[in-house]
Amino acid sequence: MQYHINKTLTFFLLLTFSATTFATQQNPTPAQVKALQQQALNSDLSYQLVESLTVEIGPRLPGTVADIKTVEWSEKQLKRLGFDKVYREPVTIPVWKRGDAKASITAPFPQNIVVTALGGSVATPKEGIEAEIVRFDSIEQVEQASAAEIEGKIVFIDPITERHRTGKGYGKVVGARSKGAVESAKKGAVAVVIRSIGTDSDRFAHTGMMRYADDVVRIPAAAMSVPDAELVNAMLKRDLPVKIKLHMTPAHKGEGTSYNVIGEITGSQYPDEIVLLGAHHDSWDEGTGALDDGAGMGIVMATGAIIKKSGIQPKRTLRVVLYAAEEIGLIGAKAYVEAHKAELDKHKFALESDFGAGYIWRFDTRVNDSALPAMQKIADALAPLGIERGHNEASGGPDVSMLPNYGVPVVSLQQDGSDYFDYHHTPNDTLDKIDPVKMKQNTAAWVTFAILAAAVDTPLRPIPPKE
Amino acid sequence: MQYHINKTLTFFLLLTFSATTFATQQNPTPAQVKALQQQALNSDLSYQLVESLTVEIGPRLPGTVADIKTVEWSEKQLKRLGFDKVYREPVTIPVWKRGDAKASITAPFPQNIVVTALGGSVATPKEGIEAEIVRFDSIEQVEQASAAEIEGKIVFIDPITERHRTGKGYGKVVGARSKGAVESAKKGAVAVVIRSIGTDSDRFAHTGMMRYADDVVRIPAAAMSVPDAELVNAMLKRDLPVKIKLHMTPAHKGEGTSYNVIGEITGSQYPDEIVLLGAHHDSWDEGTGALDDGAGMGIVMATGAIIKKSGIQPKRTLRVVLYAAEEIGLIGAKAYVEAHKAELDKHKFALESDFGAGYIWRFDTRVNDSALPAMQKIADALAPLGIERGHNEASGGPDVSMLPNYGVPVVSLQQDGSDYFDYHHTPNDTLDKIDPVKMKQNTAAWVTFAILAAAVDTPLRPIPPKE
Repeated sequence: MQYHINKTLTFFLLLTFSATTFATQQNPTPAQVKALQQQALNSDLSYQLVESLTVEIGPRLPGTVADIKTVEWSEKQLKRLGFDKVYREPVTIPVWKRGDAKASITAPFPQNIVVTALGGSVATPKEGIEAEIVRFDSIEQVEQASAAEIEGKIVFIDPITERHRTGKGYGKVVGARSKGAVESAKKGAVAVVIRSIGTDSDRFAHTGMMRYADDVVRIPAAAMSVPDAELVNAMLKRDLPVKIKLHMTPAHKGEGTSYNVIGEITGSQYPDEIVLLGAHHDSWDEGTGALDDGAGMGIVMATGAIIKKSGIQPKRTLRVVLYAAEEIGLIGAKAYVEAHKAELDKHKFALESDFGAGYIWRFDTRVNDSALPAMQKIADALAPLGIERGHNEASGGPDVSMLPNYGVPVVSLQQDGSDYFDYHHTPNDTLDKIDPVKMKQNTAAWVTFAILAAAVDTPLRPIPPKE
Repeated sequence: MQYHINKTLTFFLLLTFSATTFATQQNPTPAQVKALQQQALNSDLSYQLVESLTVEIGPRLPGTVADIKTVEWSEKQLKRLGFDKVYREPVTIPVWKRGDAKASITAPFPQNIVVTALGGSVATPKEGIEAEIVRFDSIEQVEQASAAEIEGKIVFIDPITERHRTGKGYGKVVGARSKGAVESAKKGAVAVVIRSIGTDSDRFAHTGMMRYADDVVRIPAAAMSVPDAELVNAMLKRDLPVKIKLHMTPAHKGEGTSYNVIGEITGSQYPDEIVLLGAHHDSWDEGTGALDDGAGMGIVMATGAIIKKSGIQPKRTLRVVLYAAEEIGLIGAKAYVEAHKAELDKHKFALESDFGAGYIWRFDTRVNDSALPAMQKIADALAPLGIERGHNEASGGPDVSMLPNYGVPVVSLQQDGSDYFDYHHTPNDTLDKIDPVKMKQNTAAWVTFAILAAAVDTPLRPIPPKE
């Protein structure tokens, strides 16, 4: 106890000292880093931010009133939290409205099932689409199937999403969602319905973006809940043809404007060099976007705020980027690259928090091998938070995933995503799924990384090529 | 291993012997009971039945086509399974259709919430009902409130359902659902919306029956999901008035007919004396009624079937009663009492399986104290299944709960209901929530009880008064 008080006292002395005298010259000391960590562990700011976002705005589909409210909310919060610069950058977005989605099995045993439109899907005709289904385990099976098997039918793609801490089960099967409509339509399908890309067995369908191709007819695309996929399978096992009727009323509404919202804590020594801390401010529309990506918003905003409040000025600029329109195709991320191409070589690091609110358990990087010892020092500072040093093949997160193409080093503060795909893109993505204690650990890791990353003097480029 | 083989051999010898020679005179031997248990533990019949019911019919709201299909399915299955008598008895039912239910918070922070109509609710006007809410912790608080607090508002009753193995948290708060509309309307409320009576935090609203009173105006009644109740509370904590808009289109459609379906295994010695094994065949309409009460259907039907197939004829008649219209007010149960009043004194025991598909962990009874030693013998036979002897204040289950008023002894094979109210009356009540292994243990307990109960010669009446 006494020790703790002394340490805290020491920290405040150091803090005052460094903030006033050596702000632009000294790297943060281990004691300062430790104290920053502790401040983050004691702060519920990141949780309070996602609470405010989900309660006061809720779902934030690009092109809605809520999307613009979120932009305003973000600017207001960043200013309130003391960021040195706060600004927005316009992003042109396609506007899509969900409408309703209803489906039923009409044969052999009629009953309603739970579906949702995949993001970007066209509507069915008013009278709906009714057809026999043809089942495939995977998108690869659809690609290999003959047109004779598929023509005139509703393709049912039924891949199982494996649960894994890293979320790697998702990547293996999400092609069914993104490519299902194109591959099925090429062979004459009238619609595609996939088993939800999710690890739960709740009767929710998981939405998420799908794509069309210019030269392939656009067919409606939906997901059904996992219990409903199992219901359909139980019928198929009886060797009876299964028919589904699908009614969906989504609509494309042309183009709109959203904004990337940016807040900066100016660097003391290299203000034009940037550590990019990203999250995305849009969300799907059926839950309140708490895990995806309200949690990330809270974490990166609190990271800047806690560092600002501490008085320890980062040596390089911390740029919090709250991306627009991630869910509908990384639209804000692409706009950011366009707008900032000229300064991408000044981006020291980029990383994003967009994998829910689980504990961070691993620190991955993608930097030049010569910088690995410098990364190990950061890893050592993260270790007390229960974070292990990972590999050097980090992706950085969806919105920063294209930055390595421009040479930008990326980092992942890898969260435990074991239950992320239970809730992801469903009505069940709500605030109660976030554990405030885990948010504190996340924020502590981010402040640790941010303050140390801003001070790394070792060259990090060129980054290693993708394996 | 050798021992086991010998025991099995002994059983078959005994079985042949008893079935052919002493069927009407001997009580089942411990070895026979043990072998019956083992047959049930090896059989997936109870699971197969609920699988068939949920896949081939699905939800079974009284008054629907599916309800009548269920009656036909039940008769067909009971005949297939070798029951000696199979018949149906008509039950007049009120017919109610759910329609749609939509709700949104319109102030201070507009967003949609997930609601469902409570069973029996009237519709809102076409344009919906929009009003400020007034929150109460419990139905008791509503009863104590003044009309001035409530008049013109939507009453929001917000009780938390505690998780408990016995489900006792449900009974404490379900009054908010059953009595909320009447108590709120008495004081001028325009609608009532309750926090779902459920232990989960999924974004599903839990339906269930509510009641009106003849002399009180009928206001719409809905439940919102637990995450939405928390959302509303988060807004109320900001000291801002919260307004909700509610659109619901349920409708009362007059009267219809359903049927109690009955299957009997005739008693060898006292065929006119009855051990009543109950479950209900109707279900709510948003899930597939797997846990409530498809599981119970599977268990009691398999119980009769496994006993029949074993060749051990019960000394008294085993009467499997598949009740109609339990969910909407024990309508089938009341009709059974009317139809069978004259023979209720011949009902040796009654019990129902209607609490999901968890392991049975306790054996409760309500019999004359003088019969407790005989009950202990049954408890001893249940003990190898992990079942402890409980109290002598059993309720027997919803559909047999009025039989003690007529002197009928009741029993509860108490299931672990720890997660029952996570799924109860939601779209999430689907087959995947049932563990086939637990269904086997349930069925083993029921066959054990049934065969021994049919042979109990001790007088069980008069039963003790309710505490």
